[in-house]
This record gives sequence, structure tokens and C-alpha cells, in this order.
Amino acid sequence: MPPTGSTKHVTSSPVRDLLALTSRPEVISFAGGLPAPELFDLTGLRMAFHQALSEPAGRDNLQYAPTEGNRALRSLVAARMTGKGLPTTGDDLLITTGSQQALTLVTSALLGPGAVVAVEEPTYLAALQCFRMAGARVVAVASDEHGMVPESLEEVIKAERPSLVYLVPTFANPTGRTLPAERRTAIAALAAAHDLWVVEDDPYGELRYRGEPIAPLAVGSDHVLHLGSFSKIGAPGLRLGWLRAPESLLRTLVIVKQAADLHTSTIDQAAAAIYLAAADLDAHIAGLRTAYRSRRDAMIAALPSTTPPGTTWTDPDGGMFVWVTLPEGANTTGALPTALAHDVAYVPGAPFYATTPDQATLRLSFTTNTPARITEGMARLAEALGGDRSVR
Amino acid sequence: MPPTGSTKHVTSSPVRDLLALTSRPEVISFAGGLPAPELFDLTGLRMAFHQALSEPAGRDNLQYAPTEGNRALRSLVAARMTGKGLPTTGDDLLITTGSQQALTLVTSALLGPGAVVAVEEPTYLAALQCFRMAGARVVAVASDEHGMVPESLEEVIKAERPSLVYLVPTFANPTGRTLPAERRTAIAALAAAHDLWVVEDDPYGELRYRGEPIAPLAVGSDHVLHLGSFSKIGAPGLRLGWLRAPESLLRTLVIVKQAADLHTSTIDQAAAAIYLAAADLDAHIAGLRTAYRSRRDAMIAALPSTTPPGTTWTDPDGGMFVWVTLPEGANTTGALPTALAHDVAYVPGAPFYATTPDQATLRLSFTTNTPARITEGMARLAEALGGDRSVR
Repeated sequence: MPPTGSTKHVTSSPVRDLLALTSRPEVISFAGGLPAPELFDLTGLRMAFHQALSEPAGRDNLQYAPTEGNRALRSLVAARMTGKGLPTTGDDLLITTGSQQALTLVTSALLGPGAVVAVEEPTYLAALQCFRMAGARVVAVASDEHGMVPESLEEVIKAERPSLVYLVPTFANPTGRTLPAERRTAIAALAAAHDLWVVEDDPYGELRYRGEPIAPLAVGSDHVLHLGSFSKIGAPGLRLGWLRAPESLLRTLVIVKQAADLHTSTIDQAAAAIYLAAADLDAHIAGLRTAYRSRRDAMIAALPSTTPPGTTWTDPDGGMFVWVTLPEGANTTGALPTALAHDVAYVPGAPFYATTPDQATLRLSFTTNTPARITEGMARLAEALGGDRSVR
Repeated sequence: MPPTGSTKHVTSSPVRDLLALTSRPEVISFAGGLPAPELFDLTGLRMAFHQALSEPAGRDNLQYAPTEGNRALRSLVAARMTGKGLPTTGDDLLITTGSQQALTLVTSALLGPGAVVAVEEPTYLAALQCFRMAGARVVAVASDEHGMVPESLEEVIKAERPSLVYLVPTFANPTGRTLPAERRTAIAALAAAHDLWVVEDDPYGELRYRGEPIAPLAVGSDHVLHLGSFSKIGAPGLRLGWLRAPESLLRTLVIVKQAADLHTSTIDQAAAAIYLAAADLDAHIAGLRTAYRSRRDAMIAALPSTTPPGTTWTDPDGGMFVWVTLPEGANTTGALPTALAHDVAYVPGAPFYATTPDQATLRLSFTTNTPARITEGMARLAEALGGDRSVR
């Protein structure tokens, strides 16, 4: 028998466990938060890897490398952020093994056992897992259709003394909501006034389907850590993210990352740098927006005939998700087996809550299915919801 | 001003900081533990990446993937381990972002604040950093020219109640020492008797230049976690390692890894699986052995004329390192600037100690320089040591 009793208590992600169940090809899955693989720039990335593995630089790109990350990649990402209104240099950035790693590094650097983290409700469940695994206490801030309410955050700050506020302010996971400019300013001001950090997790910001971009919270604030990712605009398989932080904290995060994995894949970073320099990423993202916009539209159009009267949903300006609230008394966890029996999948909303879950909620992702498949999947979901007593 | 005061105390790796100083091309560096880039199979790996990014599987290889790792890669690694005498299936393995990540995952899963870790003395310094960053207390076990002394481990177990023993039993970093078979059996028996884990970190085991392989501690023991790596036999830039563990712990480690980075690079894993299936890795490793053997021989041959009378050194059967102990009173940290002024670099031994450092020790790596460069570098080191008062 191997040693027992000393293993810490950890729980798996229900989304990932569910994904394992929805891999049957006949299932139309609205469950996973995946980008559409048919839209990956496979040819462009193949050429970038080929160049990264050619002489003379190919051998350097297979070797150990600095923890901070590939210098060219950091400069290119910084230039892109600067172009979007967030002035950044390569020295302000740490390349991470996906933005999930950035979350874990920030958690390791800033949160000891007993630390308090304030989050919007509901929020990204892998962030909740990450904070809880570190022994932090997660407290919820009241949120409405525009995201976190600054007045509620101020009350939570005074009552709970959090050391960190976690936000997905643009096209949030799971709700698709976007925090308006005036709330961003107010939350950054609260962070400065009360000397705490804000983590601005921004994997979806470039996937906007209507309206104008809103400045990140990090603009003009040295209390905001800004997290970005190649996963939704390029491809997630490279596991490339980046973290923008003030110099003092960046030094600490580099040391924490050194212990975590020494550095992110040298070859993936080099290929991404070559790709960013050579490809027209804006044109590629414009193509993603066009495709995803029509998928979102198909899902929104189907929702009235899919759900029972009294159901509400978000109508996101971008990103990947629609958040649905069925009439009171519904239980989306209980209804999931019925949906799977109808060959359609979603994620029940409960795990996204830090405190008391609303069992009537569910998350739908519209990115990986064509409009026609979405229409078909929503028809299946209508049947499943209509025939399941737990949603009545 | 960004928030202050809440950042945890962390310290950087002296080896990595030093590497930054030794990148001047005129320096002959024996400091870094790097594999020789001219021996990378650049062509084979380029072909593997090309195939991994071709239709039809290319799009899957850019997508999110299961945390456990690429199934084909796990099977190929398992078959290789089985062939070397450690019966393993793909289900026994977790793919990690380098074996450094495996160390951090094990630390997160098993060690809380106040936990005790027993190590050989001196030992791999990034392991020491990792355990300390988690708040564990590191205790040293007496070690001689054959590595950890089992009788001393038993005393330490009774006195200190460690929950984990960390070892690099084959061609250790930094000493090059190898733990004999009878000590391996004794240490595995102690782990079973006292219900604790042994981490067997084995990045160098295939780089043997003389003698016969010794069975891993993990053979026949469910108390041993075996860590392997692609870094020294393939290339470190892919950040690919693997961890073999009993099922119960593996489940926990998968959840901890999910929070750490979701999964290791999909494309790097796929390319490595294609490479392992297509290439003759044994022939490639035979080539590494031939080259590294002659480099080790050049370093060992130069040592008598490089060092003052009374100096001792290890004569490793494999791996990358020779460990040198100068006469009592020498201070290799103090002598390093003199060495750098002579355009030669090494790593002072002090940071590799968990407890009281021996300031007269230093680590030399022989892998990245040709025999001729090693002879030249050792002549420079002789001048530096001869001309520096701190080594007298």
C-alpha cells in the first residue's frame, strides 16, 4: 500500500470531467470552452514551427531558455497590447504556460493560507479551484447584468479585507458579461485606495462581435495584473499566455515560475514569435469574429424556442458563452443526464459559484459548432428541457 | 505604488543568475547543466513537428487536451521504461511540463507548511528551492561517495519524521554519484516500513558511460515516485517530463496539474510521440554517450593539473557533472569572479547544501564543450585557482 493520509484534499473540475463524457461524436456539445479547430491557422503555424526548427536558430529553440520568456515574443505581445491602448514593453511581461499558469503563479506569490480573494459571482471555475487549492477563502461580490458592482466591492473590502480581486471583465466566463468603463475606473480606484491587487483575466477581449472596445482596468493602474493568452486568438495547444505586472512583483513571479517549470516551451514560444511577426493576426481575428458572431446569433435566435417561459439569458457582445437562467426551481445538474440522452451537452451553472449556487443556471458555448449544428443542438436541448421534470 | 508587504519571500536560483553572467561567448562555461545543442536531432524533431502539424491530426494537436497527457506518448514512454526493467503502462504516467513541474506537483500534493523532506547532501538546488517555497523543512541525510547512507536515513526518519525523501540516485546533480543497488533496496524498504514517499528523480539515467545499469528504486515499490525527462535524451526546449506514481496519488496529481497549467503543450507532446515512434532513440543516445564520455574523460584527465594538491573529485559513471572539493579553507564563491576574469565559469557548491555548505566545493559540467575546449577551459581554471588567494 502506498503512503496514505498525507495527500491534500483536492477536487477535479466538473467541466473537464464532463468533457470526457461528451466526446461521443453524436453529441452536439455546448459544454467545453474550446476555440473552433477548423479556424486554426494550421498552415501558418506549421510554417512558423518549420522556421523555428531550421538552422541557425533551431538549436537555440530546443535548448533551455530564460524563465521570463522569449524576448521577441514579449516585444511582439507588448506592441500588440500597446496598440490596443495598454502601454506595455517586453520587460513588463512574463510568458506563462497558458494563462492558467499565470493564475497559479499569482496565487503562489500573493496568497498564503487564510488569504481572502474577492470574485464576481458566478466566475471562472478554474480560478476558484486555484484559489481554494492554495487555502484562500473566496468571497463573492454582488454582480448584476453589467458584472461586479463597485459599491458591493467596497463593502466586501471593508468587511473581509481581501488581498486580491479576481475579474474576467470582458466577455466573462461563464456569463459573457462585460464590465462598463465607469465600473472599471471605480474598481481600479478601490484597489489603489485599499492597497490590494486586481487580477484582470482577459483571454477573450479580442473576440468582440459588436460595439467598441473598452479600456482594460490595467490602463493607468499599477494595482492591476493583466493576463492575456494565445489560446483564443491563435491556438490553445501551444499553452502560451502572458502576464503584465509591475516590476517588483514580476521579479517574484519569475522566481515562482522557475520552481514551477523553469520556463515555457522554448520551441512553442519561438514559433509563436515567428508567427506573430509574419502573419496578419488582425485579419485572422477578423475571420474568427465573423464566424463566431454568426454562431452567437444562431444560439441567441434559438433560445426563445429552446427554453421554458420565464427563462432569461445574457446576450454577449463577444467571447464564447451565453449564460442561461431557467425559471426558479429548475435544476440543471439534475437535467444533464436527460440532455446527454438527447445527444446535447451544456455545463450546469452551480460550479461557477463561489458561495450559494443558483441551480437553475447553465453555460452554453457557441464557438465550436456551425450555426446549423447550433440550431439542431438547441432543438435537442428544447426536447430535453421540455421532457425533464427537474427544469419545471 | 503597487501593493506591498504581501509578497512571499522567495529567492532566485544562483545557478540561473550565474548563467546570465556567463553568456559572453569568450567564456568557457562549465556552469550550466545544459545538454550539447550540436547533438540535438534537429532534423528528426523538425520532421516530427511537421507531421504533428499536418492534416488530419494537426488541428487536434493545436487544441486543448487531457491533463494526463498524450496517450501515444504515455504508451511509448511506458514501453521504454518497461524495456529498462521498470514495468510501466501508459496509465501509470502523467506527462509534465518538464520534470521540474513534476517536483512542484508532488510538493503541492504532498507537502503542507511544516512538512519535513529528507535529502542527500549536497543535492539538486532547484528541488531545495521548490520544497522551501512550499514551506517545508529540509533535513540532510549523511551521504558518502556512494550517495545517501541508509543507516543515516533511518536515524533521520526516527528523529525528524519526514513525509518525503528526495533522491537523484543515478549520476546525481551536483555530485555525479550513483547509489548502489543494495542501498536502493534498503531505502525503498525504509520507505515502506515508515509509510513515506521517495521521489526518485532520474533525468540522467540513460547517459551511462561505463558499467551496467542499476535497477531504479521504483522497481517493486509502490512508495517510490519515479520522475523522467525528455530534456537530456531529446531536447529540453520542449519541456517534457513524466511522473510514474500509484493510481491513487496520480489522480490527485492530475488535479493539481490541471490548476497549474491545464496540460502540457499539445503540439510538443504530439511531436515527441511521433519522434519516439519514428526515430531510433537508442542509436541517438549511443551517440550522446560516445560524445559525452570523451568530454568527461578530458575533464577528469585535466583535473590533477588544474587543482591544488589535496583536492578531491568524483569520477562519474555517467550524467553531466564532476564535483570538486578543494583543500580545506578554500572558498569557491569568493574565487568565482577571478575565474570569470579568466573567462571560465563553474558553479560554487554552497547552494546545493540543505544545511551547512562546504565552501570548498564546486560543480563542473562537461557536456557542452568539446574535449579541446574542456582542456583549454581547465587550463584557465588552473590559472584562476592558482592566482586566487581564496582557494589557498
